[in-house]
Amino acid sequence: MPVLIVGSIALDDIKTQLAEHKNLLGGSASYGAVSASNFSPVNLVGIVGEDFPQEHIELFRRRGIDLGGLQIVPGETFRWSGEYMWDMNVRETRSVELNVFEHFTPTLPDGYHATPIVLLANIAPDLQHHVLNQVSQPRFVIADTMDLWINIAKESLEKLVARVDMLILNDGEARQFTGETSLIKAGKKIRAMGPQFVAIKKGEHGCLLFGPEAKYFSCPAYPLEDIHDPTGAGDSFAGGLAGYLASTVKDGEVTFEHLKKAVVYGSVLASYNVEAFSLERLKTVDSAQIDSRYDLFRHIAHFEGL
Amino acid sequence: MPVLIVGSIALDDIKTQLAEHKNLLGGSASYGAVSASNFSPVNLVGIVGEDFPQEHIELFRRRGIDLGGLQIVPGETFRWSGEYMWDMNVRETRSVELNVFEHFTPTLPDGYHATPIVLLANIAPDLQHHVLNQVSQPRFVIADTMDLWINIAKESLEKLVARVDMLILNDGEARQFTGETSLIKAGKKIRAMGPQFVAIKKGEHGCLLFGPEAKYFSCPAYPLEDIHDPTGAGDSFAGGLAGYLASTVKDGEVTFEHLKKAVVYGSVLASYNVEAFSLERLKTVDSAQIDSRYDLFRHIAHFEGL
Repeated sequence: MPVLIVGSIALDDIKTQLAEHKNLLGGSASYGAVSASNFSPVNLVGIVGEDFPQEHIELFRRRGIDLGGLQIVPGETFRWSGEYMWDMNVRETRSVELNVFEHFTPTLPDGYHATPIVLLANIAPDLQHHVLNQVSQPRFVIADTMDLWINIAKESLEKLVARVDMLILNDGEARQFTGETSLIKAGKKIRAMGPQFVAIKKGEHGCLLFGPEAKYFSCPAYPLEDIHDPTGAGDSFAGGLAGYLASTVKDGEVTFEHLKKAVVYGSVLASYNVEAFSLERLKTVDSAQIDSRYDLFRHIAHFEGL
Repeated sequence: MPVLIVGSIALDDIKTQLAEHKNLLGGSASYGAVSASNFSPVNLVGIVGEDFPQEHIELFRRRGIDLGGLQIVPGETFRWSGEYMWDMNVRETRSVELNVFEHFTPTLPDGYHATPIVLLANIAPDLQHHVLNQVSQPRFVIADTMDLWINIAKESLEKLVARVDMLILNDGEARQFTGETSLIKAGKKIRAMGPQFVAIKKGEHGCLLFGPEAKYFSCPAYPLEDIHDPTGAGDSFAGGLAGYLASTVKDGEVTFEHLKKAVVYGSVLASYNVEAFSLERLKTVDSAQIDSRYDLFRHIAHFEGL
């Protein structure tokens, strides 16, 4: 079954302490959609300017991503520029040019309204609401977010959180959003705001998943020695997770066991993503490689019983 | 089979942001020995003054800890005083009084020289060398350490690391010791210095275990909401790990699968330890509780295959 993904589509300039690249394909929806497309059909909702390179459109097409919801309008594509320090967890935004994104009103085309799995990738909460308002009886809605929205749109974000089945955010954001130092308390506090499931991403420390009845899962991180570009790791995680869910949820409920596997698949996609700049690695990874790394995650986390 | 444990035995004054207690039993060997005693006989090597309360001696005896290596000498017991901030990862040492510890020369009594499993708990590397020099053909030697020794006794520590089978240290110390930001690189770099196995403790994020042939294990953390006193968490971890190894290693080699279980048992003991000040929780925990939490760790880390 298909997954609906709305988010940003961007052209990024990215500098690490080892390399610098300009005009890269980026944005939460780009990473999310290409990740998810490994598992399921994707209905993409986003906006780009007329300067958006045709090769990226072709990449989306090649991955079976439906572009009926992609608005191509006069003007320039959203641009983001950032620099990573030696500690790749530290990022500095150098510039943001909203361009066509400034007046983006995501409107679902015919055929998108009944998409059962919805990923509201990282984007302003008001836009996430706007998309959610147009979807009829979704089976499972996942929202991703970032520190910016906690700072400038907390009220809208809180209302959104109450409407979704799952919230994804990172450790710093979870602490910021809840005022709790303990991630365990933070996860429980967010669940109390509405979503049945909460995933807290911890970068090199993996990911925590919280579910109903105090259910709890700790997903390890893949032991990467070199990260080439962390951009889009969270978006690839969300996309892989949503795509896996969409490919496997049939008629039954989404169970915790099911979501654990989805979290691991999300982590697999994120781990591949950071191996190269932009979507360079993500666009070549195949299902055998994905399954092989999934097995590695099992290996890393496994220990014998009593 | 028994485990030999050498380390500090202290009287601690501990302040958290919620409570303050004085004259508590502390020290790396105290936590290590009581933890290990859940699994195996312990030969304790340490020093206390004549002021050392009899009740602590009785606690050690009750746990079947052999005190033939405990020196009780004129003078005062080693004293440490510290304060934890709201973020329990941040600790300030308020005072240290070495007292009888200043002239401690650990000497193994008869019957200790052939102890097969040795835990060199956190103590000056020179003293760890001194004990190791007296042990004949140990099966498996584990060393714990701390930032202080990396700062003031790095050369001695490096020589020690080359002599042991396993080094235990925390994430900050691993980075400090190797100059690597990546814990994966740090773990590999330490292995290249000699020890077959390296455990990097990450507090709320669990623990990483590195072994031969790039073997790697990520142990989750128990989802504790409230930590009452983090003191001795690392020492309980090392003691539980060493005690479990001693109880189960028969004639064969110590395998990676074996050490994974030991790391989980160490994590179980550490998770109980921080539930109360000093050894208050550690001294009452029983084997049913330990096994039950081991099972919980399995649950937390488990996800289905492809």
